[in-house]
Amino acid sequence: MIIKMKKGATESNIDKVVTRIEDYGFTPDLSQGKGTMVIGVIGETHTVSEQKFKELAGVESVLRITRPYKLVSREYSSEDRIIEFGGVKIGGKNRPVVIAGPCSVENEEQIVRIAKEVKKAGADMLRGGAYKPRSSPYSFQGLGRPGLDYMALARKESGLPIVTEATGIHYHKIDNTPEEKDVLDNVLDYTDILQIGTRNMKSYGFLQTVAERTAKSGLPVLLKRGEEATIKEFLLSAEYIAGNGNPNVILCLRGIRTFEETRWQRYTSDIAAISVLKQESNLPVLFDPSHATGDRELVRQISLAAISAGADGLLVEAHYDPENAASDGPECVTSNVIADIVEDVKLFHQHFSGRFNR
Amino acid sequence: MIIKMKKGATESNIDKVVTRIEDYGFTPDLSQGKGTMVIGVIGETHTVSEQKFKELAGVESVLRITRPYKLVSREYSSEDRIIEFGGVKIGGKNRPVVIAGPCSVENEEQIVRIAKEVKKAGADMLRGGAYKPRSSPYSFQGLGRPGLDYMALARKESGLPIVTEATGIHYHKIDNTPEEKDVLDNVLDYTDILQIGTRNMKSYGFLQTVAERTAKSGLPVLLKRGEEATIKEFLLSAEYIAGNGNPNVILCLRGIRTFEETRWQRYTSDIAAISVLKQESNLPVLFDPSHATGDRELVRQISLAAISAGADGLLVEAHYDPENAASDGPECVTSNVIADIVEDVKLFHQHFSGRFNR
Amino acid sequence: MIIKMKKGATESNIDKVVTRIEDYGFTPDLSQGKGTMVIGVIGETHTVSEQKFKELAGVESVLRITRPYKLVSREYSSEDRIIEFGGVKIGGKNRPVVIAGPCSVENEEQIVRIAKEVKKAGADMLRGGAYKPRSSPYSFQGLGRPGLDYMALARKESGLPIVTEATGIHYHKIDNTPEEKDVLDNVLDYTDILQIGTRNMKSYGFLQTVAERTAKSGLPVLLKRGEEATIKEFLLSAEYIAGNGNPNVILCLRGIRTFEETRWQRYTSDIAAISVLKQESNLPVLFDPSHATGDRELVRQISLAAISAGADGLLVEAHYDPENAASDGPECVTSNVIADIVEDVKLFHQHFSGRFNR
Amino acid sequence: MIIKMKKGATESNIDKVVTRIEDYGFTPDLSQGKGTMVIGVIGETHTVSEQKFKELAGVESVLRITRPYKLVSREYSSEDRIIEFGGVKIGGKNRPVVIAGPCSVENEEQIVRIAKEVKKAGADMLRGGAYKPRSSPYSFQGLGRPGLDYMALARKESGLPIVTEATGIHYHKIDNTPEEKDVLDNVLDYTDILQIGTRNMKSYGFLQTVAERTAKSGLPVLLKRGEEATIKEFLLSAEYIAGNGNPNVILCLRGIRTFEETRWQRYTSDIAAISVLKQESNLPVLFDPSHATGDRELVRQISLAAISAGADGLLVEAHYDPENAASDGPECVTSNVIADIVEDVKLFHQHFSGRFNR
Repeated sequence: MIIKMKKGATESNIDKVVTRIEDYGFTPDLSQGKGTMVIGVIGETHTVSEQKFKELAGVESVLRITRPYKLVSREYSSEDRIIEFGGVKIGGKNRPVVIAGPCSVENEEQIVRIAKEVKKAGADMLRGGAYKPRSSPYSFQGLGRPGLDYMALARKESGLPIVTEATGIHYHKIDNTPEEKDVLDNVLDYTDILQIGTRNMKSYGFLQTVAERTAKSGLPVLLKRGEEATIKEFLLSAEYIAGNGNPNVILCLRGIRTFEETRWQRYTSDIAAISVLKQESNLPVLFDPSHATGDRELVRQISLAAISAGADGLLVEAHYDPENAASDGPECVTSNVIADIVEDVKLFHQHFSGRFNR
Repeated sequence: MIIKMKKGATESNIDKVVTRIEDYGFTPDLSQGKGTMVIGVIGETHTVSEQKFKELAGVESVLRITRPYKLVSREYSSEDRIIEFGGVKIGGKNRPVVIAGPCSVENEEQIVRIAKEVKKAGADMLRGGAYKPRSSPYSFQGLGRPGLDYMALARKESGLPIVTEATGIHYHKIDNTPEEKDVLDNVLDYTDILQIGTRNMKSYGFLQTVAERTAKSGLPVLLKRGEEATIKEFLLSAEYIAGNGNPNVILCLRGIRTFEETRWQRYTSDIAAISVLKQESNLPVLFDPSHATGDRELVRQISLAAISAGADGLLVEAHYDPENAASDGPECVTSNVIADIVEDVKLFHQHFSGRFNR
Repeated sequence: MIIKMKKGATESNIDKVVTRIEDYGFTPDLSQGKGTMVIGVIGETHTVSEQKFKELAGVESVLRITRPYKLVSREYSSEDRIIEFGGVKIGGKNRPVVIAGPCSVENEEQIVRIAKEVKKAGADMLRGGAYKPRSSPYSFQGLGRPGLDYMALARKESGLPIVTEATGIHYHKIDNTPEEKDVLDNVLDYTDILQIGTRNMKSYGFLQTVAERTAKSGLPVLLKRGEEATIKEFLLSAEYIAGNGNPNVILCLRGIRTFEETRWQRYTSDIAAISVLKQESNLPVLFDPSHATGDRELVRQISLAAISAGADGLLVEAHYDPENAASDGPECVTSNVIADIVEDVKLFHQHFSGRFNR
Repeated sequence: MIIKMKKGATESNIDKVVTRIEDYGFTPDLSQGKGTMVIGVIGETHTVSEQKFKELAGVESVLRITRPYKLVSREYSSEDRIIEFGGVKIGGKNRPVVIAGPCSVENEEQIVRIAKEVKKAGADMLRGGAYKPRSSPYSFQGLGRPGLDYMALARKESGLPIVTEATGIHYHKIDNTPEEKDVLDNVLDYTDILQIGTRNMKSYGFLQTVAERTAKSGLPVLLKRGEEATIKEFLLSAEYIAGNGNPNVILCLRGIRTFEETRWQRYTSDIAAISVLKQESNLPVLFDPSHATGDRELVRQISLAAISAGADGLLVEAHYDPENAASDGPECVTSNVIADIVEDVKLFHQHFSGRFNR
């Protein structure tokens, strides 16, 4: 439910609305628009009549949100949410960003070298995993906190902000000894954007914990779509974070699981879902062409397709030696491909950004 | 199997190779390259050793095709197949084409008006169905041959070549009376490109009949991917036409069926499959954003995404009055959107065609 | 729309109802229930008010069918349709049938031997393909009419009725010479049940032709579900046959295409769809465990699961030498497995048929 | 890798093998078979030659496991793993179990009443959720620890052991106050079987934590298949638990996400996957017909289909007042349906258990 106050509404008017919202057990969400105050009501408001708010002094109108997700819907707030930090802006009319880096942080030299290379190629941020969700318990699970240290060094050396994944709130082990902090706290000590992976998109308890621990800082959270999550489920997971205190959510698509042969494509690139999400939600939407295609020969072209469909940026796996990457080598590109992609994105933005006015 | 002859190979050398091919029950396919003759061997050649051809005079090399499809594969012929007719060129480095028109031909006025409108908007061809495959026996099944007459008139009035679908080799009825010719023969009397729909992609007997009836004319055949057909199955269906005498096949994607909610998208747009097909096959690839998305709000943006992924053209549903179209109104756009799409395609081709050298 | 006449309704009353139905361009479908006449109205009746029929003399009630399919729905006729021929009964409370035989008829000896073996094992019918829909144009396409001759001989030798597939209304070729009749007519010269395959489920022109050519004989038509057809599409395809004159349709499930690994299962066995179809339609429902699983190790157990879900019978691939079958060997079982399956089915029917009263 | 010792192998022989296993960084898994010791080697053993173990004294043979999962595969141990506790046995040749109860624990009266009813109906265990993973942050998230207290009371009153889900290792809140223990520890204080839900099947950090906290007790863990998880991914997730110290894993299928219309079935019942899992793994396999179908009209029949496919038991939602259940009412059955299901299962076991000798 959204309550629009009249232009001349007093603070006392607003206070009374807020009090009533809280009386019903809901949470108020105030935002000052141009000259008018708009108050969101978060909670299961269908049990309460609009009249209960319309009757208060200073209230101009009461609008019900028909979507199951609220804060992240365009219906609730039609303005694009723009995520801004360290000179990078994601979303809105800004030039789409290119985030590049390896699947896994392997060692200091590797990540620093890649960071410098992708920086030179024009990338806006560095990606790299210190904690890796692997389908087999016998596969390399990431370097852990030392990997984060290398990421921090790579950030310093390259000047690029970093994004890295927290795989949960369990304790990662190195040589069978659990690290001092849980995985999420470790990652929060370092990262500029917190990534939540595909496999955790429906770990609702984890999402809630993420929201609580980042509510104060407002650290941007990049949430990947589950392999088979519907658009509705994806936006509800984003709502778990936004509705629990951190509105700075970035959506990221990475291919969905369908009947298509994995011989050709690891997943089916859900390109049209970019456009659907941009219509339905106010959040920025990125696309990960590396996991989606699983094939470095396709990465550049699908990157451009994603941007054409309205993506606010790309998350691309890059390595100087894809053949010998610790994980996901077949979908990794070298930094000269990153340079091509950056060039494509700029060229596209220059010629097409004015043509589509979402 | 592909047999490359030496540069100085004589006609007699070639004749002997051809004879041996036929002795094994295979079909030879001769094509004169730059200075050298290349002979394709069509059939299940895995039963025969390369040696049987290598030993003949004038043979330089023998290459096995590892794909189950032969003629339509890049492995067999790496050069882009370009379909050319009435001034239109589809495939290769040509500017992607825009084919527009209504789902169904409704009457003379409708199709002539739309033809003129989309011509003015810059479209290259007119689409429209006189025979409609409908999932319900109680739905409008198309006007039949009179619809083709209206299409022909629209072609004359607009100057646009036409593409229309043959739904089979059965006899369409008008007022319970079967038409004089079967559907395919009716369509062949009129069309510039013959369309085979999604639902018939695996009607192998029909595909074979199409190939036989068009082998002599080489009339281009636009084959749509089945809703759940794999890339392999799709290319094998194309091979049914190419291998039975008509190599002028145009592939057309139109969305696949997945778990995604039909509320948002009628089908999942298989954009990355465009890139895969362009790598794997030498045939031109079109995309139909109207059936894929089922939503006119998405058509323009997904059109551009398809072009970015390498599509050689678009097949778009257009109508001056989408709300009242006889079928598929929700996915129909008006001609001013067609004009935008044509403009997008030209702009894209101008700035990007040189950047990707497939 | 269904019109129930009053108990004492006269012939003249009925005639007037029929006339009005025809005046609207609809088709009447009369069936004499216990003491009362029920008249189905086939066509797009939503344009006409019930009142137009209620007002006629002798009419008791008018009921609208809410489903898009009419004749095949339980809503239209709640009684199970039972298909009966040559001593075999399919549907209703009858013991589920077991139809067994090879994928392809290979030669006289093969099919006669298999027929005798499966007869001995207790099978109720013989299956075998003379015309084969193959995804590759270079694969064996079936023996054609000679294959039908062998099937007829096998029927004679074993006493089992036969079911075989018509792949279309094109002309099959033997040594490049088209057969005298089209495929459908050839098959109609021989078969006891006409099979329409998965790949043709949406070839609506073909379905219509099948209905017309079998309307008079009422020859049972076994219609297989498309690999990705929805329940609604499947029943609408059945309606194409029933609504065009032949109500004797048997539905057959054979697995659907999903994300599941083909390493384990060729298709996903759509077992619950059996129960859904039995609730939603009055037609008998068979299951084909061979194509569904693609794995002979699974065939027997999945057969029993299908029967447990309410299937009226099974269509099982059988061969005395599965390793060397001309097609689909990996999913073929030997006749001793058929004997086990027949035994399972009988045992199940004996102990469970009374427990579920659909 | 599996190392079989010779019959007369000494303890010293075994010790040396164990030492070498540990030297390579692998983990030994000893199990005493009939007269012979079998030593599993857990880890990425493909880097080490069999010869390194064959050469040790007392070793009879060394067998490589070709599957990516080890402990849970039939290849590793062909014997059925039987889970036994409180008089209940799950797996092997035992009569399949029926576990019944509500989706959510709503209050003391509700769960005690249902427990007594399903006990009377013949159920073997009680299910019920105190922590609920909900796709919307605004939906009821479960009663938390008080709900577990009610479950414990219901266990005492009915005599049925209980199974309930832990949704993570976060802190559940009641009136905005986090509970004292994390969710997993709360559940471990009470339950007889620990359930891990569909949405957490790929939360690898959580799976590992579960394994560690239950390694000593060996508390059975019921792991549900992810909505789109492949068989391989599912078994690898089971391996995360077994390979980290708790081999007592029970697999549970609950329908997969496909293109099928949710109007008819909430998910596609993956019945054949039961048979595949029983072939591929030594773990018991249950089926949840309630979540799979989402329709109480289908639950009983699909239950029987699952048992026919080889399931070792069922997990069925039951409530005395399905219409007013706090969650998932449409798929809930009443206890008289549970009684029918129990009767079906017993009858099936009586007549068919001897016929299939897996």
